[in-house]
Amino acid sequence: MQTVEKWDVFEVVLPGASAGNPFTDYTIHGTFTGPQEQKTVDGFYDGDGRWVVRFMPSFEGEYTWRVEGSFADAPSEGRFLVTAPSEGNHGPVRVANTYHFAYEDGTPYYSIGTTCYVWELQSDEQIAQTLESLREARFNKIRFCILPKHYDYNLGEPRSYPYEGTPMDSSILTPENFLDYFGKVNDSRFDYTRFNPAHFRHIEKCILALRDLGIEADLIVMHPYDRWGFSLMTPEQDDLYWRYVLARFSCYRNVWWSLANEYDILPKTLQDWERYAAIICEKDVYGHLRSIHHCIHCYDYSRPWITHCSVQRTDLYKTAELTGELRERYRKPVVMDEIAYEGNIQHGWGNLTGEEMLRRFWETACRGGYPGHGETMLKEDQVLWWSHGGRLRGESWKRFGFLLDILKETPGLGLQPISAHWDEVTAIPQQPGVAEETGYRLCYYSFMRPSFREFYLDDDSRWEVEVIDTWNMTIEKRGVFTGRFRVDLPGRPYMAIRLRKAR
Amino acid sequence: MQTVEKWDVFEVVLPGASAGNPFTDYTIHGTFTGPQEQKTVDGFYDGDGRWVVRFMPSFEGEYTWRVEGSFADAPSEGRFLVTAPSEGNHGPVRVANTYHFAYEDGTPYYSIGTTCYVWELQSDEQIAQTLESLREARFNKIRFCILPKHYDYNLGEPRSYPYEGTPMDSSILTPENFLDYFGKVNDSRFDYTRFNPAHFRHIEKCILALRDLGIEADLIVMHPYDRWGFSLMTPEQDDLYWRYVLARFSCYRNVWWSLANEYDILPKTLQDWERYAAIICEKDVYGHLRSIHHCIHCYDYSRPWITHCSVQRTDLYKTAELTGELRERYRKPVVMDEIAYEGNIQHGWGNLTGEEMLRRFWETACRGGYPGHGETMLKEDQVLWWSHGGRLRGESWKRFGFLLDILKETPGLGLQPISAHWDEVTAIPQQPGVAEETGYRLCYYSFMRPSFREFYLDDDSRWEVEVIDTWNMTIEKRGVFTGRFRVDLPGRPYMAIRLRKAR
Repeated sequence: MQTVEKWDVFEVVLPGASAGNPFTDYTIHGTFTGPQEQKTVDGFYDGDGRWVVRFMPSFEGEYTWRVEGSFADAPSEGRFLVTAPSEGNHGPVRVANTYHFAYEDGTPYYSIGTTCYVWELQSDEQIAQTLESLREARFNKIRFCILPKHYDYNLGEPRSYPYEGTPMDSSILTPENFLDYFGKVNDSRFDYTRFNPAHFRHIEKCILALRDLGIEADLIVMHPYDRWGFSLMTPEQDDLYWRYVLARFSCYRNVWWSLANEYDILPKTLQDWERYAAIICEKDVYGHLRSIHHCIHCYDYSRPWITHCSVQRTDLYKTAELTGELRERYRKPVVMDEIAYEGNIQHGWGNLTGEEMLRRFWETACRGGYPGHGETMLKEDQVLWWSHGGRLRGESWKRFGFLLDILKETPGLGLQPISAHWDEVTAIPQQPGVAEETGYRLCYYSFMRPSFREFYLDDDSRWEVEVIDTWNMTIEKRGVFTGRFRVDLPGRPYMAIRLRKAR
Repeated sequence: MQTVEKWDVFEVVLPGASAGNPFTDYTIHGTFTGPQEQKTVDGFYDGDGRWVVRFMPSFEGEYTWRVEGSFADAPSEGRFLVTAPSEGNHGPVRVANTYHFAYEDGTPYYSIGTTCYVWELQSDEQIAQTLESLREARFNKIRFCILPKHYDYNLGEPRSYPYEGTPMDSSILTPENFLDYFGKVNDSRFDYTRFNPAHFRHIEKCILALRDLGIEADLIVMHPYDRWGFSLMTPEQDDLYWRYVLARFSCYRNVWWSLANEYDILPKTLQDWERYAAIICEKDVYGHLRSIHHCIHCYDYSRPWITHCSVQRTDLYKTAELTGELRERYRKPVVMDEIAYEGNIQHGWGNLTGEEMLRRFWETACRGGYPGHGETMLKEDQVLWWSHGGRLRGESWKRFGFLLDILKETPGLGLQPISAHWDEVTAIPQQPGVAEETGYRLCYYSFMRPSFREFYLDDDSRWEVEVIDTWNMTIEKRGVFTGRFRVDLPGRPYMAIRLRKAR
């Protein structure tokens, strides 16, 4: 009997109809039944007469499957065995403790994300380099687009297109004129009802490569940075696209759904977005995480289908600092996906210093949210991490693993900000019992540079004190204190103090 | 005939009553009549039977004076000649161009301020050092208090007290217990109806020393940082104090009135503040600048007696960035008197880096406001500039003169911010005609570090381009450009670009 491990993919491939337009003329679906679940999912046409149905089992044991295609006289059936997950396979990421995330097996997940909008549409060599960079930086989430991107520094051709057709002639594009071609069909000629399966197969390969590195694939399904008309499809074409995407990608445990990058500058209505959301909720039977990212006005994150806030800064100066307010307002995890990027390009969203990028990471994390990185360091080859991946050139990325390790040491799951002092970001464990029991407290001083700080939390506890240099990545043990005590600091920015009750 | 220069002080000293309590039992006033003005002002008792009336003439020519004391049978009279102002004497500072300041002779005044709360109550040696530091840093305004200060790092005795009496025993004060004595009478014993004229005479000497350095004395008349009961006087005692202060100090051309430091944590009512304001408006016949500074909630700057906003940051992250909003809201000059201090003490209001302090200066100035400095660098002697003056130890102060020079090059008077780009602070001359004629434009990039910026303002003008490094204090001429052009930058924070139309 075929075997597959829990939270991996079981795939049924069948020959079938290929005449006419198989993407619109036929359907296929499969039902998978195991000891603790039964799920029916759509399959999809993969080209060359190949029809595919995929399933992610969430329980161990023996399953049966039954696949029916509208082109076939009788269903196909079979059995398979779901084995225990292998090391490193913790299942999909879920919301946990209201504001946080954990893998389905209960392992806490502290998101340290980055953005490379179309890294997967670059050359094989560059994709390999991106994966190596992600591994080295210890990112565990990456935002990227299914559709190609048209924008400044993104005037070249993607490796493939999602539809059959021919793109506009991009040789006429320049940094001066590219906005004239933004969000239009131009002279591209695509059939928005005929997918290019190779485009999607390739993305699947990339999703799996990320999965094997323990990285969540935060898939941006729609976006306005378009010159091929993909942002201008009809509602029927959009729905066809959504169903195809869902049928292909839902089975991967590391997938998150980002309905859009900057939904509010796409020519769609709120009704459109709600309709796409309904399609996800119906067709993704695994309940992967769902959010939607904005340019100016954030979506109403209180909508029940939204699992977490996916935030872009809307103020040049206050960004990560808004994490606490968003937590309180929406009572969902706050992922600060776009708080400007480390870089040196001309645009204000892409020219932070490494220090400021790292500061925004710590501000977000100590306020109980999850920060996102991007990098736009100019180079002659115009390969910018933010869009193309490749090699990281900045300074902040080297320091995220250190933050991740500290977050992983949070007792229980997740931090929450408390109002302890106006001039300090103070985080304690999310669960009140855990906070009191452990006394765990992470105090972050941001751009300020106190020479010392004074503490007086109670009269009796013995407090283990550590001084953390978030930039230089050192943790210095300062001993055990009781009552009123003073912690000397080096008078540099980007310092933190961690307290724990001594056992 | 006695002579005095315009905007200097003409003083009449008479012997008079000294029995009982001269501060409350008698009054004195003088009327000064010249070719273009007649003014009646209160005089004051200066101790030892000395009664003084002072007057600042605003016009040249021959004046007569006539002084009457309630203790005297007949008035004294005389004449004096007002001569032209000497070099460096431009008169009092007035509001000009709605959002800006100019001396009465029309010379633009670009305020570059600092705060040393009780510098004048230190030793002679330290006062001399403060004056030398002010000169070297090219500050042209200083905020300080008439009353002594009690707070962290301010536990010692002032050189004198404003009233007759004995202070509490300060040897019992420690950094841990000083708040227990805050805003109380404690065991001080002062007669709040009997001034100590020596205290005020000394302050006058300091005001004059500032005047001679071209520095405005922004006098903080009340404040809550008290352990002697000066913040707890009765309304009658307060009014007596205000009248005495006004009779003594109004005559100095470089005086500004700050009703309070942090008015909102003093035990006074809004009616009290409005009453003090009415006393100033009545008794200061010269109309010196008037404002009031807050801790948490700013005063209603739209009150007609308030000439300009005197602002303290109320947000840890956004401070100077609010200048434009305040300008629009109040339509008055915005003086960002307290946007946190360069330093390394434990408190968040006093531990900015020099870079961040300078950034806040440029942010304020390019938004058409006026920034204020303070310094709280820890030292063994606990002499912190912010309160005691002395020697400047930080990095930002060295760079304010450079900013001042650039501000002085503004065509016309004063800058205004415009919404040119979301990721740039853009300043043009306040007068629309001047802006158009000169094309003057100052673009500031704050913590961002673009490698270049692109400009396209019109098709025909020839633009002189300069790149300004605000930290390293360099101005690099880049030549003349027309139409669409690109300005390369070094990819460091704290850069600015200045454009002017070539003649």
